[in-house]
Amino acid sequence: MSKRVINFNPGPAALPLPVLEEIQEELLNYKGCGMSVLEISHRSDTFTSIIEDAEKRLRRLMGLNDDYTVLFLQGGASFQFAMIPMNLMHGDQVADYINTGTWSTKAIKEAQIQGKNVNVVASSEDKNFSYIPKDINFTRDAVYVHITSNNTIKGTQWAEFPDTGGVPIVSDMSSDILSRKIPVEKFGLIYAGAQKNLGPAGVTVVIIRKDLLELCADDLPTMLKYKTFAEKKSLFNTPPCFAIYVVQLVLKWLEETVGGVEKVEEINRQKAKILYDLIDSSDFYRGTAEPDSRSMMNVTFRLPTPELEAQFIEEAAANGLAGLKGHRSVGGCRASIYNATSLSAVQTLVDFMDSFAKKHR
Amino acid sequence: MSKRVINFNPGPAALPLPVLEEIQEELLNYKGCGMSVLEISHRSDTFTSIIEDAEKRLRRLMGLNDDYTVLFLQGGASFQFAMIPMNLMHGDQVADYINTGTWSTKAIKEAQIQGKNVNVVASSEDKNFSYIPKDINFTRDAVYVHITSNNTIKGTQWAEFPDTGGVPIVSDMSSDILSRKIPVEKFGLIYAGAQKNLGPAGVTVVIIRKDLLELCADDLPTMLKYKTFAEKKSLFNTPPCFAIYVVQLVLKWLEETVGGVEKVEEINRQKAKILYDLIDSSDFYRGTAEPDSRSMMNVTFRLPTPELEAQFIEEAAANGLAGLKGHRSVGGCRASIYNATSLSAVQTLVDFMDSFAKKHR
Repeated sequence: MSKRVINFNPGPAALPLPVLEEIQEELLNYKGCGMSVLEISHRSDTFTSIIEDAEKRLRRLMGLNDDYTVLFLQGGASFQFAMIPMNLMHGDQVADYINTGTWSTKAIKEAQIQGKNVNVVASSEDKNFSYIPKDINFTRDAVYVHITSNNTIKGTQWAEFPDTGGVPIVSDMSSDILSRKIPVEKFGLIYAGAQKNLGPAGVTVVIIRKDLLELCADDLPTMLKYKTFAEKKSLFNTPPCFAIYVVQLVLKWLEETVGGVEKVEEINRQKAKILYDLIDSSDFYRGTAEPDSRSMMNVTFRLPTPELEAQFIEEAAANGLAGLKGHRSVGGCRASIYNATSLSAVQTLVDFMDSFAKKHR
Repeated sequence: MSKRVINFNPGPAALPLPVLEEIQEELLNYKGCGMSVLEISHRSDTFTSIIEDAEKRLRRLMGLNDDYTVLFLQGGASFQFAMIPMNLMHGDQVADYINTGTWSTKAIKEAQIQGKNVNVVASSEDKNFSYIPKDINFTRDAVYVHITSNNTIKGTQWAEFPDTGGVPIVSDMSSDILSRKIPVEKFGLIYAGAQKNLGPAGVTVVIIRKDLLELCADDLPTMLKYKTFAEKKSLFNTPPCFAIYVVQLVLKWLEETVGGVEKVEEINRQKAKILYDLIDSSDFYRGTAEPDSRSMMNVTFRLPTPELEAQFIEEAAANGLAGLKGHRSVGGCRASIYNATSLSAVQTLVDFMDSFAKKHR
């Protein structure tokens, strides 16, 4: 078996090696129950322990109190783009959306397809989504304000969350959930596809404030209603059991091995700092996001020419550094450095970048 | 590590041991790519090979020609209950539904919630869903006829598919897909949650005839349209990669190790026969489904008293025979004997049942 590489994929992304080893170890017989975790019933005590432990750990790690309901759904963030306005917006009600890139744009489109009153109160499209808008005029009686907390493609991130005058924020946190402490009380709904910071593709975490849940539409198809899953603790029908199991292991690792969100935030800040420091000190690399809007999760950068970028990505891969190609819609390079990517892995990348620049300058 | 048990769970259900061993073997480094299959990009060549191979094998195993599109979706069969009428029924169009139990009832409800014209042309509710209706008058110009090919809870199965006068059949085949040869040409859409005969929970296979796909609604939210996934080969957004990978391995096992659908059907018929023969030759056990409607996948039966049933389930479990409890809505006992359950596993159950009956008669 060849060596494992250092994985800078944007998602599905690197998982903690101890988590993968634990999955492997117990794959044929989960905790002595005589079956694989892939074969157990979602109604069994064994699976109940898994999903309940995952929820408890997520609550502790994020500081969620009983005002919030935690759901494990399917369909990815893309499905939430449709489900959120379908459930939360009624009649003529308005929701504010801030457009910071591809994913925000898609979220806006899915609300509009349903004929909802979408108010795009800010956009950074004028500068190719390279920054996070400031000084936004929110609609006073909006049902919610939708943002994308971290933009994987453009490499931007909300450093602080806006003051919406009490309107609950609904945020796509697919690519930065649990990477830093957040002021939970500002949020009405947080959603995240698992495949970046939480686990594998195939499960979506939705955290919804109970007062918003109560406002949800009742006349929708059963599988499109948040209430269906809230009432049945995510077990209305068969959930994606294995993906939830891996999420549980990742949360256990974050809590017990890393030491929680404050600790991982400290590491994430160091990881981002050494990468951006190299980029800023170089006349070879150029960051694409404005400095005050830079993402700690997805570091996007360019080299002097597309030819050098192609060579960089290829040589990096040959040196065991995988997944550094920018999104096909923007080109360039991108290092995705989620929770499971260690500081030393990022240091290895920085060293490689430094020596590549010296060779080609 | 304790021994693996024989798993008669109704779903999620037993997987072939060689499949589990292959997953375990390559979990840290998939085919030498340096990453776990849980960590690879859904846009990578590696994953493309997996999903394309899964589709090719499914096409060969089921005898699907180019008239059909194969999709890998999320949300389970329950999500299809809503998605099917949403996509296929327009305006005043009518669809026929046949009610053979819990899952059919839910499918009917989800079409009705959307205000669609549902015509329930037959039902076996009069006899507690213990049989499959015959001599049905179908609506001549119906868009489709919806059936549940196998009823996991009631233990019934369509032995032959009805003559609908050319109206395409839409079938929930979650619990019997690939268990036997079917006349594909009768079907307009086949759907199946993977967690019984195909793989783990978390992916749903949808097979749709292209002429029906063309008739699908265009004005729906993107993630609710079949066309979205057809145009992007199931990769509009991140699919449930791991679940698709396991499906690929299960299909490879069925094709290469078992020898295909005809072969597995022969084994499935033997498995069902030895179980039903024991039940029929006994005055201790009593089958709940009418003989001509019996399922080859879920064998439901009662013992003389609920106390004996509880004791039977407990003693069986103590003897390494797990998952024999009937569905909580009906009670009694049920042995789910999907493709991954071997003839010798069923023989072990038959032997246990025989000796239990002798002890308690």
